[in-house]
Amino acid sequence: LDNRPIGVFDSGLGGLTVVKQLKALLPNEDIVYFGDTGRVPYGTRSNETIIKYATQDVNFLQSFDVKMIIAACGTVSSVLPEEISKSFNIDYTGVLLPASQDACSKTKNKRIGVIGTSATINSGAYEKVIKSIIPDAEVFTNACPMFVPLVENGFIERDNKIAKLVAEDYLEMFKKENVDTLILGCTHFPIIKDIIGDVLGESVTLIDPGFSTAKIAKDILLKTNKLSENQSTSDINYFVSDTQSGFTKIASIFLGETVETSPKTVDLNN
Amino acid sequence: LDNRPIGVFDSGLGGLTVVKQLKALLPNEDIVYFGDTGRVPYGTRSNETIIKYATQDVNFLQSFDVKMIIAACGTVSSVLPEEISKSFNIDYTGVLLPASQDACSKTKNKRIGVIGTSATINSGAYEKVIKSIIPDAEVFTNACPMFVPLVENGFIERDNKIAKLVAEDYLEMFKKENVDTLILGCTHFPIIKDIIGDVLGESVTLIDPGFSTAKIAKDILLKTNKLSENQSTSDINYFVSDTQSGFTKIASIFLGETVETSPKTVDLNN
Repeated sequence: LDNRPIGVFDSGLGGLTVVKQLKALLPNEDIVYFGDTGRVPYGTRSNETIIKYATQDVNFLQSFDVKMIIAACGTVSSVLPEEISKSFNIDYTGVLLPASQDACSKTKNKRIGVIGTSATINSGAYEKVIKSIIPDAEVFTNACPMFVPLVENGFIERDNKIAKLVAEDYLEMFKKENVDTLILGCTHFPIIKDIIGDVLGESVTLIDPGFSTAKIAKDILLKTNKLSENQSTSDINYFVSDTQSGFTKIASIFLGETVETSPKTVDLNN
Repeated sequence: LDNRPIGVFDSGLGGLTVVKQLKALLPNEDIVYFGDTGRVPYGTRSNETIIKYATQDVNFLQSFDVKMIIAACGTVSSVLPEEISKSFNIDYTGVLLPASQDACSKTKNKRIGVIGTSATINSGAYEKVIKSIIPDAEVFTNACPMFVPLVENGFIERDNKIAKLVAEDYLEMFKKENVDTLILGCTHFPIIKDIIGDVLGESVTLIDPGFSTAKIAKDILLKTNKLSENQSTSDINYFVSDTQSGFTKIASIFLGETVETSPKTVDLNN
Protein backbone atom coordinates (compact mmCIF):
# COMPACT_ATOMS: atom_id res chain seq x y z
CA LEU A 1 0.00 0.00 0.00
CA ASP A 2 1.14 3.49 -0.83
CA ASN A 3 -0.36 6.73 0.45
CA ARG A 4 1.59 9.02 -1.83
CA PRO A 5 -0.49 11.14 -4.24
CA ILE A 6 -1.16 10.56 -7.92
CA GLY A 7 0.23 13.31 -10.17
CA VAL A 8 -2.02 14.54 -12.99
CA PHE A 9 -1.17 17.20 -15.56
CA ASP A 10 -2.73 18.87 -18.55
CA SER A 11 -2.04 21.91 -20.71
CA GLY A 12 -4.82 23.68 -18.83
CA LEU A 13 -7.80 22.86 -16.65
CA GLY A 14 -9.50 20.43 -19.04
CA GLY A 15 -7.59 17.56 -17.40
CA LEU A 16 -9.93 17.96 -14.45
CA THR A 17 -12.45 15.91 -16.44
CA VAL A 18 -10.00 13.04 -15.92
CA VAL A 19 -9.64 13.91 -12.23
CA LYS A 20 -13.42 13.77 -11.97
CA GLN A 21 -13.37 10.15 -13.14
CA LEU A 22 -10.37 9.33 -10.92
CA LYS A 23 -12.20 10.66 -7.87
CA ALA A 24 -15.24 8.55 -8.70
CA LEU A 25 -13.25 5.34 -9.14
CA LEU A 26 -10.49 5.91 -6.57
CA PRO A 27 -12.14 8.12 -3.95
CA ASN A 28 -9.35 7.76 -1.36
CA GLU A 29 -6.43 8.77 -3.54
CA ASP A 30 -4.76 12.14 -3.05
CA ILE A 31 -4.01 14.06 -6.23
CA VAL A 32 -1.51 16.74 -7.22
CA TYR A 33 -2.86 18.52 -10.31
CA PHE A 34 -0.77 20.73 -12.55
CA GLY A 35 -2.49 22.81 -15.25
CA ASP A 36 -0.05 24.59 -17.55
CA THR A 37 -2.38 27.58 -17.94
CA GLY A 38 0.55 29.89 -18.71
CA ARG A 39 1.36 27.90 -21.86
CA VAL A 40 -2.06 26.59 -22.88
CA PRO A 41 -3.00 25.51 -25.55
CA TYR A 42 -0.62 22.68 -26.43
CA GLY A 43 -2.79 21.55 -29.35
CA THR A 44 -1.43 24.17 -31.75
CA ARG A 45 2.26 23.93 -30.71
CA SER A 46 4.99 22.05 -32.55
CA ASN A 47 5.75 18.47 -31.43
CA GLU A 48 9.14 19.55 -30.17
CA THR A 49 7.57 22.18 -27.92
CA ILE A 50 4.88 19.80 -26.67
CA ILE A 51 7.52 17.21 -25.68
CA LYS A 52 9.59 19.87 -23.90
CA TYR A 53 6.59 21.16 -21.97
CA ALA A 54 5.36 17.67 -21.04
CA THR A 55 8.80 16.72 -19.72
CA GLN A 56 8.88 19.86 -17.57
CA ASP A 57 5.37 19.11 -16.30
CA VAL A 58 6.37 15.57 -15.31
CA ASN A 59 9.54 16.78 -13.58
CA PHE A 60 7.45 19.27 -11.62
CA LEU A 61 5.01 16.57 -10.45
CA GLN A 62 7.89 14.25 -9.52
CA SER A 63 9.10 16.91 -7.07
CA PHE A 64 6.03 15.96 -4.96
CA ASP A 65 7.07 12.30 -4.68
CA VAL A 66 3.99 11.10 -6.55
CA LYS A 67 3.49 7.34 -7.06
CA MET A 68 2.11 7.59 -10.57
CA ILE A 69 1.71 10.19 -13.31
CA ILE A 70 -1.27 10.65 -15.61
CA ALA A 71 -1.00 12.85 -18.69
CA ALA A 72 -4.62 14.01 -18.73
CA CYS A 73 -4.04 15.74 -22.04
CA GLY A 74 -5.02 14.35 -25.41
CA THR A 75 -2.26 16.25 -27.17
CA VAL A 76 0.58 15.05 -24.89
CA SER A 77 -0.76 11.50 -24.94
CA SER A 78 -0.69 11.50 -28.72
CA VAL A 79 2.63 13.21 -29.27
CA LEU A 80 4.95 12.03 -26.48
CA PRO A 81 7.08 9.07 -27.68
CA GLU A 82 7.09 5.96 -25.48
CA GLU A 83 10.86 6.07 -25.03
CA ILE A 84 10.47 9.42 -23.32
CA SER A 85 7.59 8.39 -21.07
CA LYS A 86 9.55 5.26 -20.06
CA SER A 87 12.56 7.41 -19.19
CA PHE A 88 10.46 9.11 -16.48
CA ASN A 89 11.00 5.96 -14.41
CA ILE A 90 7.56 6.01 -12.80
CA ASP A 91 4.19 4.38 -13.48
CA TYR A 92 2.80 6.57 -16.27
CA THR A 93 -0.25 6.59 -18.47
CA GLY A 94 -1.71 8.97 -21.01
CA VAL A 95 -5.33 8.90 -22.14
CA LEU A 96 -4.64 7.50 -25.61
CA LEU A 97 -4.10 3.79 -24.94
CA PRO A 98 -6.89 3.41 -22.34
CA ALA A 99 -9.41 5.16 -24.61
CA SER A 100 -8.34 3.11 -27.63
CA GLN A 101 -8.69 -0.16 -25.70
CA ASP A 102 -12.13 0.87 -24.51
CA ALA A 103 -13.25 1.80 -28.01
CA CYS A 104 -11.98 -1.51 -29.40
CA SER A 105 -13.87 -3.46 -26.76
CA LYS A 106 -17.10 -1.56 -27.50
CA THR A 107 -17.21 -1.47 -31.30
CA LYS A 108 -19.23 -4.09 -33.13
CA ASN A 109 -18.80 -3.00 -36.74
CA LYS A 110 -15.10 -2.09 -36.28
CA ARG A 111 -15.78 1.44 -37.54
CA ILE A 112 -14.35 3.81 -34.94
CA GLY A 113 -14.34 7.61 -34.98
CA VAL A 114 -11.89 9.89 -33.18
CA ILE A 115 -12.21 13.62 -32.52
CA GLY A 116 -9.61 15.85 -30.86
CA THR A 117 -7.43 18.93 -31.29
CA SER A 118 -5.56 19.43 -34.56
CA ALA A 119 -2.31 18.15 -33.00
CA THR A 120 -3.98 14.97 -31.71
CA ILE A 121 -5.65 14.21 -35.03
CA ASN A 122 -2.63 15.16 -37.18
CA SER A 123 -0.38 12.88 -35.09
CA GLY A 124 -2.30 9.84 -36.34
CA ALA A 125 -1.63 8.29 -32.93
CA TYR A 126 -5.16 7.02 -32.23
CA GLU A 127 -5.36 5.36 -35.64
CA LYS A 128 -2.05 3.58 -35.04
CA VAL A 129 -2.97 2.31 -31.57
CA ILE A 130 -6.48 1.21 -32.58
CA LYS A 131 -5.09 -0.74 -35.56
CA SER A 132 -2.53 -2.40 -33.31
CA ILE A 133 -5.49 -3.78 -31.31
CA ILE A 134 -7.94 -4.47 -34.20
CA PRO A 135 -5.87 -4.66 -37.40
CA ASP A 136 -8.87 -4.52 -39.73
CA ALA A 137 -10.61 -1.67 -37.89
CA GLU A 138 -11.56 1.37 -39.97
CA VAL A 139 -10.69 4.60 -38.19
CA PHE A 140 -12.24 7.95 -39.12
CA THR A 141 -10.85 11.13 -37.60
CA ASN A 142 -11.75 14.80 -37.53
CA ALA A 143 -10.11 17.72 -35.70
CA CYS A 144 -12.73 19.73 -33.80
CA PRO A 145 -10.76 22.78 -32.62
CA MET A 146 -13.87 24.92 -32.08
CA PHE A 147 -15.16 22.61 -29.33
CA VAL A 148 -12.47 23.92 -26.95
CA PRO A 149 -13.46 27.60 -27.06
CA LEU A 150 -17.12 26.64 -27.04
CA VAL A 151 -16.60 24.87 -23.70
CA GLU A 152 -14.30 27.54 -22.28
CA ASN A 153 -16.74 30.31 -23.14
CA GLY A 154 -19.75 28.56 -21.71
CA PHE A 155 -21.58 27.51 -24.88
CA ILE A 156 -22.30 24.16 -23.24
CA GLU A 157 -26.02 23.92 -22.58
CA ARG A 158 -27.63 21.00 -24.35
CA ASP A 159 -29.97 23.30 -26.30
CA ASN A 160 -27.29 25.86 -27.25
CA LYS A 161 -27.88 26.57 -30.95
CA ILE A 162 -24.30 27.60 -31.70
CA ALA A 163 -22.76 24.52 -30.07
CA LYS A 164 -25.25 22.32 -31.88
CA LEU A 165 -24.45 23.86 -35.30
CA VAL A 166 -20.70 23.46 -34.72
CA ALA A 167 -21.22 19.85 -33.59
CA GLU A 168 -23.31 19.09 -36.69
CA ASP A 169 -20.61 20.64 -38.87
CA TYR A 170 -17.82 18.54 -37.34
CA LEU A 171 -19.71 15.26 -36.81
CA GLU A 172 -21.66 14.91 -40.04
CA MET A 173 -18.89 12.74 -41.56
CA PHE A 174 -19.11 10.17 -38.74
CA LYS A 175 -22.80 9.63 -39.46
CA LYS A 176 -22.02 9.17 -43.17
CA GLU A 177 -19.26 6.69 -42.34
CA ASN A 178 -21.56 4.75 -40.02
CA VAL A 179 -19.15 4.62 -37.05
CA ASP A 180 -20.61 2.91 -33.97
CA THR A 181 -18.02 4.21 -31.48
CA LEU A 182 -16.54 7.70 -31.10
CA ILE A 183 -13.55 8.60 -28.92
CA LEU A 184 -13.82 12.07 -27.35
CA GLY A 185 -10.07 12.60 -27.72
CA CYS A 186 -9.76 15.94 -25.94
CA THR A 187 -10.36 16.55 -22.24
CA HIS A 188 -12.84 19.33 -22.98
CA PHE A 189 -15.19 17.25 -25.04
CA PRO A 190 -16.94 15.21 -22.31
CA ILE A 191 -18.43 18.53 -21.11
CA ILE A 192 -20.54 18.68 -24.30
CA LYS A 193 -21.14 14.93 -24.46
CA ASP A 194 -24.92 15.49 -24.54
CA ILE A 195 -24.68 17.80 -27.53
CA ILE A 196 -22.40 15.36 -29.38
CA GLY A 197 -24.71 12.49 -28.49
CA ASP A 198 -27.76 14.37 -29.75
CA VAL A 199 -26.11 14.86 -33.14
CA LEU A 200 -24.89 11.26 -33.50
CA GLY A 201 -27.84 9.46 -31.96
CA GLU A 202 -27.99 6.61 -29.45
CA SER A 203 -26.47 4.02 -31.77
CA VAL A 204 -23.02 5.57 -31.36
CA THR A 205 -21.12 4.77 -28.14
CA LEU A 206 -19.14 7.76 -26.86
CA ILE A 207 -15.81 6.97 -25.19
CA ASP A 208 -14.74 9.39 -22.43
CA PRO A 209 -10.95 8.91 -22.15
CA GLY A 210 -11.07 10.18 -18.57
CA PHE A 211 -13.19 7.21 -17.56
CA SER A 212 -11.03 4.76 -19.53
CA THR A 213 -7.88 6.20 -17.96
CA ALA A 214 -9.25 6.09 -14.41
CA LYS A 215 -9.97 2.37 -14.89
CA ILE A 216 -6.40 1.76 -16.09
CA ALA A 217 -4.98 3.80 -13.20
CA LYS A 218 -6.95 1.67 -10.76
CA ASP A 219 -5.68 -1.52 -12.45
CA ILE A 220 -2.08 -0.34 -12.18
CA LEU A 221 -2.43 0.55 -8.49
CA LEU A 222 -4.11 -2.81 -7.75
CA LYS A 223 -1.46 -4.81 -9.61
CA THR A 224 1.44 -2.97 -8.01
CA ASN A 225 -0.27 -3.00 -4.59
CA LYS A 226 -0.08 0.77 -4.37
CA LEU A 227 -3.66 1.71 -3.46
CA SER A 228 -3.92 4.31 -0.72
CA GLU A 229 -4.96 3.24 2.80
CA ASN A 230 -6.47 6.66 3.46
CA GLN A 231 -10.04 6.48 4.67
CA SER A 232 -10.70 10.15 4.05
CA THR A 233 -11.88 11.46 0.69
CA SER A 234 -9.16 12.49 -1.66
CA ASP A 235 -7.33 15.74 -1.24
CA ILE A 236 -6.51 17.69 -4.42
CA ASN A 237 -3.66 20.19 -4.57
CA TYR A 238 -3.90 22.52 -7.56
CA PHE A 239 -0.95 24.16 -9.31
CA VAL A 240 -1.11 26.38 -12.39
CA SER A 241 1.52 28.29 -14.37
CA ASP A 242 -0.48 31.50 -14.70
CA THR A 243 -3.17 33.00 -12.49
CA GLN A 244 -6.62 32.95 -13.96
CA SER A 245 -9.28 35.21 -12.53
CA GLY A 246 -11.93 32.61 -13.33
CA PHE A 247 -10.08 29.55 -11.97
CA THR A 248 -12.75 28.43 -9.51
CA LYS A 249 -15.55 28.77 -12.05
CA ILE A 250 -13.76 26.99 -14.91
CA ALA A 251 -12.25 24.30 -12.66
CA SER A 252 -15.69 23.56 -11.21
CA ILE A 253 -17.17 23.06 -14.69
CA PHE A 254 -14.50 20.50 -15.60
CA LEU A 255 -14.45 18.76 -12.20
CA GLY A 256 -18.23 18.61 -12.07
CA GLU A 257 -18.29 19.86 -8.49
CA THR A 258 -17.39 23.06 -6.68
CA VAL A 259 -13.66 23.68 -6.37
CA GLU A 260 -13.04 25.64 -3.20
CA THR A 261 -9.27 25.74 -2.87
CA SER A 262 -7.20 28.26 -4.80
CA PRO A 263 -4.34 27.08 -7.01
CA LYS A 264 -0.69 27.88 -6.33
CA THR A 265 1.17 29.48 -9.24
CA VAL A 266 4.52 28.17 -10.47
CA ASP A 267 6.66 29.16 -13.46
CA LEU A 268 8.27 26.20 -15.23
CA ASN A 269 10.18 28.40 -17.69
CA ASN A 270 12.70 29.42 -15.06
CA LEU B 1 14.78 60.45 -43.55
CA ASP B 2 15.29 57.06 -41.98
CA ASN B 3 15.41 53.75 -43.84
CA ARG B 4 15.38 51.56 -40.74
CA PRO B 5 12.42 49.19 -40.43
CA ILE B 6 9.29 49.57 -38.31
CA GLY B 7 8.92 46.88 -35.63
CA VAL B 8 5.47 45.36 -35.17
CA PHE B 9 4.50 42.69 -32.64
CA ASP B 10 1.44 40.77 -31.57
CA SER B 11 0.68 37.74 -29.43
CA GLY B 12 0.21 35.80 -32.66
CA LEU B 13 -0.44 36.44 -36.33
CA GLY B 14 -3.54 38.62 -35.92
CA GLY B 15 -1.31 41.70 -35.84
CA LEU B 16 -0.82 41.20 -39.56
CA THR B 17 -4.19 42.95 -40.03
CA VAL B 18 -2.35 46.04 -38.76
CA VAL B 19 0.59 45.34 -41.10
CA LYS B 20 -1.92 45.16 -43.96
CA GLN B 21 -3.02 48.73 -43.23
CA LEU B 22 0.59 49.89 -42.71
CA LYS B 23 1.55 48.50 -46.13
CA ALA B 24 -1.35 50.32 -47.75
CA LEU B 25 -0.55 53.66 -46.15
CA LEU B 26 3.26 53.40 -46.01
CA PRO B 27 4.13 51.18 -48.98
CA ASN B 28 7.89 51.85 -48.86
CA GLU B 29 8.51 51.04 -45.19
CA ASP B 30 10.33 47.84 -44.25
CA ILE B 31 8.79 45.89 -41.39
CA VAL B 32 10.08 43.41 -38.82
CA TYR B 33 7.12 41.42 -37.51
CA PHE B 34 7.21 39.30 -34.37
CA GLY B 35 4.28 37.00 -33.59
CA ASP B 36 4.55 35.36 -30.18
CA THR B 37 2.90 32.17 -31.43
CA GLY B 38 4.63 30.12 -28.73
CA ARG B 39 2.81 32.03 -26.00
CA VAL B 40 -0.44 33.01 -27.72
CA PRO B 41 -3.08 33.89 -26.53
CA TYR B 42 -2.27 36.89 -24.35
CA GLY B 43 -5.95 37.73 -23.83
CA THR B 44 -6.45 35.16 -21.08
CA ARG B 45 -3.13 35.73 -19.23
CA SER B 46 -2.67 37.78 -16.07
CA ASN B 47 -1.69 41.46 -16.48
CA GLU B 48 1.70 40.74 -14.93
CA THR B 49 2.41 38.07 -17.54
CA ILE B 50 1.17 40.24 -20.41
CA ILE B 51 3.50 43.09 -19.36
CA LYS B 52 6.44 40.69 -19.06
CA TYR B 53 5.82 39.20 -22.51
CA ALA B 54 5.29 42.60 -24.16
CA THR B 55 8.55 43.90 -22.71
CA GLN B 56 10.41 40.85 -24.06
CA ASP B 57 8.75 41.34 -27.46
CA VAL B 58 9.84 44.99 -27.59
CA ASN B 59 13.40 44.12 -26.55
CA PHE B 60 13.54 41.53 -29.31
CA LEU B 61 12.39 44.04 -31.95
CA GLN B 62 14.88 46.63 -30.69
CA SER B 63 17.69 44.19 -31.47
CA PHE B 64 16.91 44.94 -35.16
CA ASP B 65 17.52 48.68 -34.74
CA VAL B 66 13.92 49.55 -35.65
CA LYS B 67 12.90 53.22 -35.78
CA MET B 68 9.46 52.73 -34.25
CA ILE B 69 7.49 50.00 -32.49
CA ILE B 70 3.81 49.21 -32.93
CA ALA B 71 2.02 46.94 -30.48
CA ALA B 72 -0.44 45.44 -32.95
CA CYS B 73 -2.20 43.66 -30.14
CA GLY B 74 -5.40 44.83 -28.48
CA THR B 75 -4.51 43.11 -25.22
CA VAL B 76 -1.02 44.64 -24.89
CA SER B 77 -2.31 48.07 -25.95
CA SER B 78 -4.94 47.93 -23.20
CA VAL B 79 -2.84 46.49 -20.41
CA LEU B 80 0.66 47.97 -20.78
CA PRO B 81 1.05 51.07 -18.55
CA GLU B 82 2.32 54.25 -20.22
CA GLU B 83 5.32 54.50 -17.88
CA ILE B 84 6.55 51.18 -19.26
CA SER B 85 6.01 52.03 -22.94
CA LYS B 86 7.81 55.35 -22.36
CA SER B 87 10.75 53.52 -20.79
CA PHE B 88 11.32 51.74 -24.14
CA ASN B 89 12.87 55.00 -25.32
CA ILE B 90 11.59 54.70 -28.89
CA ASP B 91 8.59 56.00 -30.85
CA TYR B 92 5.86 53.61 -29.76
CA THR B 93 2.14 53.24 -30.35
CA GLY B 94 -0.45 50.65 -29.48
CA VAL B 95 -3.80 50.37 -31.23
CA LEU B 96 -5.88 51.71 -28.32
CA LEU B 97 -5.36 55.47 -28.57
CA PRO B 98 -5.52 55.68 -32.41
CA ALA B 99 -8.74 53.63 -32.50
CA SER B 100 -10.30 55.67 -29.68
CA GLN B 101 -9.47 58.96 -31.40
CA ASP B 102 -10.97 57.67 -34.64
CA ALA B 103 -14.14 56.52 -32.91
CA CYS B 104 -14.52 59.87 -31.15
CA SER B 105 -14.17 61.75 -34.43
CA LYS B 106 -16.80 59.53 -36.10
CA THR B 107 -19.54 59.28 -33.47
CA LYS B 108 -22.49 61.65 -33.74
CA ASN B 109 -24.62 60.47 -30.82
CA LYS B 110 -21.62 59.93 -28.49
CA ARG B 111 -22.68 56.30 -27.93
CA ILE B 112 -19.61 54.17 -28.69
CA GLY B 113 -19.31 50.39 -28.51
CA VAL B 114 -16.10 48.40 -27.98
CA ILE B 115 -15.53 44.68 -28.53
CA GLY B 116 -12.33 42.75 -27.78
CA THR B 117 -10.83 39.87 -25.84
CA SER B 118 -11.75 39.43 -22.18
CA ALA B 119 -8.48 41.05 -21.05
CA THR B 120 -9.03 44.09 -23.27
CA ILE B 121 -12.60 44.59 -22.11
CA ASN B 122 -11.91 43.85 -18.43
CA SER B 123 -9.06 46.37 -18.43
CA GLY B 124 -11.56 49.18 -18.98
CA ALA B 125 -8.84 50.92 -21.00
CA TYR B 126 -10.94 51.90 -24.02
CA GLU B 127 -13.63 53.39 -21.83
CA LYS B 128 -11.05 55.48 -19.97
CA VAL B 129 -9.36 56.79 -23.12
CA ILE B 130 -12.65 57.55 -24.93
CA LYS B 131 -13.94 59.50 -21.92
CA SER B 132 -10.70 61.47 -21.77
CA ILE B 133 -11.51 62.64 -25.31
CA ILE B 134 -15.30 63.02 -25.01
CA PRO B 135 -16.12 63.27 -21.29
CA ASP B 136 -19.87 62.76 -21.75
CA ALA B 137 -19.56 59.84 -24.17
CA GLU B 138 -21.41 56.67 -23.25
CA VAL B 139 -19.25 53.60 -23.78
CA PHE B 140 -20.71 50.09 -24.08
CA THR B 141 -18.36 47.11 -24.06
CA ASN B 142 -18.62 43.36 -24.60
CA ALA B 143 -15.92 40.69 -24.63
CA CYS B 144 -16.24 38.51 -27.75
CA PRO B 145 -13.75 35.69 -27.08
CA MET B 146 -15.37 33.29 -29.57
CA PHE B 147 -14.56 35.58 -32.52
CA VAL B 148 -10.88 34.62 -32.27
CA PRO B 149 -11.30 30.85 -32.76
CA LEU B 150 -13.96 31.48 -35.39
CA VAL B 151 -11.42 33.42 -37.45
CA GLU B 152 -8.56 31.02 -36.74
CA ASN B 153 -10.61 28.02 -37.74
CA GLY B 154 -11.91 29.52 -40.95
CA PHE B 155 -15.52 30.29 -40.01
CA ILE B 156 -15.17 33.63 -41.82
CA GLU B 157 -17.36 33.55 -44.93
CA ARG B 158 -20.00 36.25 -44.90
CA ASP B 159 -22.81 33.68 -45.06
CA ASN B 160 -21.36 31.35 -42.41
CA LYS B 161 -24.29 30.46 -40.15
CA ILE B 162 -22.21 29.74 -37.07
CA ALA B 163 -20.26 32.99 -37.27
CA LYS B 164 -23.49 34.88 -37.81
CA LEU B 165 -25.18 33.29 -34.77
CA VAL B 166 -22.16 34.06 -32.56
CA ALA B 167 -22.07 37.64 -33.86
CA GLU B 168 -25.78 38.09 -33.16
CA ASP B 169 -25.27 36.70 -29.66
CA TYR B 170 -22.43 39.12 -28.86
CA LEU B 171 -23.68 42.21 -30.69
CA GLU B 172 -27.36 42.29 -29.78
CA MET B 173 -26.65 44.63 -26.85
CA PHE B 174 -25.08 47.27 -29.10
CA LYS B 175 -28.24 47.45 -31.19
CA LYS B 176 -30.32 47.85 -28.06
CA GLU B 177 -28.02 50.60 -26.79
CA ASN B 178 -28.18 52.42 -30.13
CA VAL B 179 -24.40 52.87 -30.54
CA ASP B 180 -23.43 54.56 -33.82
CA THR B 181 -19.73 53.57 -33.72
CA LEU B 182 -18.10 50.25 -32.79
CA ILE B 183 -14.39 49.69 -32.21
CA LEU B 184 -13.18 46.27 -33.39
CA GLY B 185 -10.73 46.07 -30.47
CA CYS B 186 -8.96 42.83 -31.39
CA THR B 187 -6.72 42.30 -34.41
CA HIS B 188 -8.76 39.28 -35.53
CA PHE B 189 -12.05 41.09 -35.79
CA PRO B 190 -11.55 43.05 -39.05
CA ILE B 191 -11.46 39.66 -40.82
CA ILE B 192 -15.17 39.21 -40.02
CA LYS B 193 -16.05 42.88 -40.47
CA ASP B 194 -18.71 41.98 -43.05
CA ILE B 195 -20.45 39.60 -40.68
CA ILE B 196 -20.34 42.16 -37.86
CA GLY B 197 -21.60 44.85 -40.24
CA ASP B 198 -24.49 42.65 -41.41
CA VAL B 199 -25.65 42.19 -37.81
CA LEU B 200 -25.37 45.86 -36.82
CA GLY B 201 -26.52 47.45 -40.06
CA GLU B 202 -25.13 50.36 -42.06
CA SER B 203 -25.92 53.00 -39.47
CA VAL B 204 -23.06 51.77 -37.27
CA THR B 205 -19.51 52.85 -38.23
CA LEU B 206 -16.95 50.10 -37.64
CA ILE B 207 -13.51 51.24 -36.51
CA ASP B 208 -10.60 49.03 -37.61
CA PRO B 209 -7.76 49.86 -35.16
CA GLY B 210 -5.22 48.70 -37.75
CA PHE B 211 -6.26 51.51 -40.08
CA SER B 212 -6.34 54.08 -37.25
CA THR B 213 -2.90 52.96 -36.09
CA ALA B 214 -1.36 53.08 -39.57
CA LYS B 215 -2.55 56.68 -39.88
CA ILE B 216 -0.92 57.59 -36.54
CA ALA B 217 2.29 55.78 -37.50
CA LYS B 218 2.43 57.81 -40.71
CA ASP B 219 1.85 61.03 -38.73
CA ILE B 220 4.70 60.20 -36.35
CA LEU B 221 7.12 59.40 -39.19
CA LEU B 222 6.16 62.60 -41.00
CA LYS B 223 6.54 64.75 -37.90
CA THR B 224 9.89 63.25 -36.93
CA ASN B 225 11.08 63.26 -40.55
CA LYS B 226 11.70 59.50 -40.46
CA LEU B 227 9.90 58.30 -43.59
CA SER B 228 11.87 55.79 -45.62
CA GLU B 229 13.53 56.87 -48.87
CA ASN B 230 13.24 53.38 -50.29
CA GLN B 231 11.56 53.29 -53.66
CA SER B 232 10.98 49.54 -53.56
CA THR B 233 7.89 48.00 -51.96
CA SER B 234 8.24 47.15 -48.33
CA ASP B 235 10.11 44.11 -47.21
CA ILE B 236 8.62 42.13 -44.31
CA ASN B 237 10.73 39.89 -42.09
CA TYR B 238 8.66 37.45 -40.04
CA PHE B 239 9.66 36.01 -36.68
CA VAL B 240 7.57 33.67 -34.51
CA SER B 241 8.22 31.93 -31.20
CA ASP B 242 6.88 28.54 -32.26
CA THR B 243 6.66 26.89 -35.64
CA GLN B 244 3.18 26.57 -37.04
CA SER B 245 2.50 24.17 -39.85
CA GLY B 246 -0.18 26.48 -41.22
CA PHE B 247 1.83 29.74 -41.00
CA THR B 248 1.57 30.70 -44.67
CA LYS B 249 -2.14 30.03 -44.82
CA ILE B 250 -3.04 31.86 -41.61
CA ALA B 251 -0.64 34.75 -42.23
CA SER B 252 -2.11 35.23 -45.72
CA ILE B 253 -5.65 35.48 -44.31
CA PHE B 254 -4.62 38.23 -41.89
CA LEU B 255 -2.36 40.09 -44.33
CA GLY B 256 -4.95 39.90 -47.08
CA GLU B 257 -2.37 38.76 -49.63
CA THR B 258 -0.18 35.72 -50.16
CA VAL B 259 2.71 35.45 -47.72
CA GLU B 260 5.56 33.67 -49.46
CA THR B 261 8.46 33.93 -47.02
CA SER B 262 8.79 31.53 -44.12
CA PRO B 263 9.15 32.88 -40.59
CA LYS B 264 12.26 32.43 -38.46
CA THR B 265 11.68 30.90 -35.05
CA VAL B 266 13.04 32.46 -31.85
CA ASP B 267 12.54 31.55 -28.19
CA LEU B 268 12.18 34.58 -25.93
CA ASN B 269 12.00 32.47 -22.75
CA ASN B 270 15.72 31.78 -22.83
